[in-house]
Amino acid sequence: MIKIAVLGSSGSIGQSTLEVVRSLPRQFKVEALSVNSDIVRLKQQVKEFRPKSVCVRDPRAAMKLKASLGASTKVLCGQEGLDELVKDKDIQQVMIAITGSAALAPLIGAIKSGKEIALANKEALVMAGSLLMRMAKEHKVLIKPVDSEQSAIWQSLGAQSADSVRQVYLTASGGPLLKLPRHQFKQVTIKRVLRHPRWKMGKKITVDSATLMNKGLELLEAMFLFNLGVEKIKVLIHPEALIHSMVEFNDGVTMAQLSITDMRIPIQYALSYPERLPNRLAGVNFYSLSQLHFAKPDLGKFPCLALAYQAARDLGTMPAVLNAANETSVDMFLKEKINFLTIPKIVEKVMRAHARIANPGLNQIMRADAWAREEARRLAG
Amino acid sequence: MIKIAVLGSSGSIGQSTLEVVRSLPRQFKVEALSVNSDIVRLKQQVKEFRPKSVCVRDPRAAMKLKASLGASTKVLCGQEGLDELVKDKDIQQVMIAITGSAALAPLIGAIKSGKEIALANKEALVMAGSLLMRMAKEHKVLIKPVDSEQSAIWQSLGAQSADSVRQVYLTASGGPLLKLPRHQFKQVTIKRVLRHPRWKMGKKITVDSATLMNKGLELLEAMFLFNLGVEKIKVLIHPEALIHSMVEFNDGVTMAQLSITDMRIPIQYALSYPERLPNRLAGVNFYSLSQLHFAKPDLGKFPCLALAYQAARDLGTMPAVLNAANETSVDMFLKEKINFLTIPKIVEKVMRAHARIANPGLNQIMRADAWAREEARRLAG
Repeated sequence: MIKIAVLGSSGSIGQSTLEVVRSLPRQFKVEALSVNSDIVRLKQQVKEFRPKSVCVRDPRAAMKLKASLGASTKVLCGQEGLDELVKDKDIQQVMIAITGSAALAPLIGAIKSGKEIALANKEALVMAGSLLMRMAKEHKVLIKPVDSEQSAIWQSLGAQSADSVRQVYLTASGGPLLKLPRHQFKQVTIKRVLRHPRWKMGKKITVDSATLMNKGLELLEAMFLFNLGVEKIKVLIHPEALIHSMVEFNDGVTMAQLSITDMRIPIQYALSYPERLPNRLAGVNFYSLSQLHFAKPDLGKFPCLALAYQAARDLGTMPAVLNAANETSVDMFLKEKINFLTIPKIVEKVMRAHARIANPGLNQIMRADAWAREEARRLAG
Repeated sequence: MIKIAVLGSSGSIGQSTLEVVRSLPRQFKVEALSVNSDIVRLKQQVKEFRPKSVCVRDPRAAMKLKASLGASTKVLCGQEGLDELVKDKDIQQVMIAITGSAALAPLIGAIKSGKEIALANKEALVMAGSLLMRMAKEHKVLIKPVDSEQSAIWQSLGAQSADSVRQVYLTASGGPLLKLPRHQFKQVTIKRVLRHPRWKMGKKITVDSATLMNKGLELLEAMFLFNLGVEKIKVLIHPEALIHSMVEFNDGVTMAQLSITDMRIPIQYALSYPERLPNRLAGVNFYSLSQLHFAKPDLGKFPCLALAYQAARDLGTMPAVLNAANETSVDMFLKEKINFLTIPKIVEKVMRAHARIANPGLNQIMRADAWAREEARRLAG
């Protein structure tokens, strides 16, 4: 029985994590849950999974919840509450399913608790990857990726070390605009951008998928998670999105991981590792599948990917700046304040204006993040 | 430094094994070599690799060689010589690169020596798989497959056990006749059959590739090597022959192994396992590759594959009978005594006429093998 804490249980990955637990009740037990503010959903989850403790970031929502829950569930609040929550010695694994840069502090808390971590958040790693991986090493904490691409690299690596990797093919479905001609990008509507052919995801990540910035962020994630140089990571367009990434070893062998596009698969693997547990999820049916396609991405059409490669070469505070400028620009695109083509333009300008710090501490990273958001808003203004 | 014996060093796999050793002189050292009768090539190999001892199956050839080699190389002869050869305590690994059923006795000798085995031979396993795997277990001997498909399954399995396997996709290029209409099979020439699109191999195996019997033999191999039931193994046509096989696990994940079609890759992996060693062999270039294709095999067009599935369900002496009847029929096809379509007809008749023994010992297997060869010759008569 593996006892877990799910941080960010009301979001998409949080809910999928609970589905995995629901489907394997003898293997997994939920010991703790946390949400930002959605206490309606949290109450349902408490009723079903009966965790020992819960945490709500928002203090007022926490108070409200406390009043309505029985004494059998401990209600904590804020970052301090989260830090206390993960320390519970019954908890073996912490699933970080919080989205955005808000995951950074909870992730650090989880690392300090010494628990195994299943990490579904991209932004924290992109912002502070070197620092976080160093911290994980110090605390002897295994960080297990949940993102389907990172999970695929992890599974393809198997017992081999980073030294034996010749290169990684990070696959990309190509997103909703793969086949749209570039001259139509300027006028592209939000509705069109949000129509993803393979994955049903949140709005921000779907826009990132359309610009290929999502793949850029994953490129940075992969570098930190697997200790790989940027020159070893190639992005590969693969529209069927069945191969979730591949590792080419220095002996000429390529290992690939494939599955249907269902986040429960990498979530379950992260939680059950090193074992695999039987489930009822379908495999890839090669008898009904006739072809798989591959192509090199067009960096001219998708400049966000080129910018991410630039940030990956620069490192230091640059990935945090890329991430913050992108998050702000995407937000403004979704609010119809800028058009689609302006997203990479703003990110590029913010990156150019940034005075990079080579080996930043957490505060310097947070400051670069805040500065980049401000600068992106000013440029869009 | 890994010290190896190469049994069957003058053949195609034997020579490729020595190429691997030549390319990694600090990692591998050849301690012993053996051939059937090709002492001309063996002498060249002795000159280059300076093994401690060699063995020649044919006694007259052995005598001849002894006369021409210096005292620094011990010359042995026959099966007894082979058994002595592999016992040398400096030898850590034995590569079995002998083709056909002639590999059975040397393989048993190698297992009894307790050395790790790299196994490139199909027939021995097909004939006596249950018995050999049991023997390997008793002697705590790891049998490492060299055949590209079995190597791919092995690599895809990683640290997982057979229990966690939902199914295996054993890939097949489809062979030289994949696109030829069935009504032209009767008149197909030997020359046409020997024109394989992907692999350059010996004549017998190329004919097996054209009938898909090769995949049938591999199906049996995989069952024994990985302890899988026949119902778990699916054959998948994949004309590019880049994915060498795949394992679907019970959690919905499929792992695949890919490489260019070069036997040095699985040979090196078998020898270097569990490590991977850097070489100069090219990986699969997904930027220049645009598609991979897949299809279900047509058992009506390729009845040999259906016969192999039948033998895999029957087991006992039936796989040995399938193998022997096929070897004899292919030989007669290559001698232009029967046409292409008669190969499966003879194999089927021999299988039907066979009184199967459920749990045969080695002698019973050898007798079934001899009977099937005789019966096949009689039917072709």
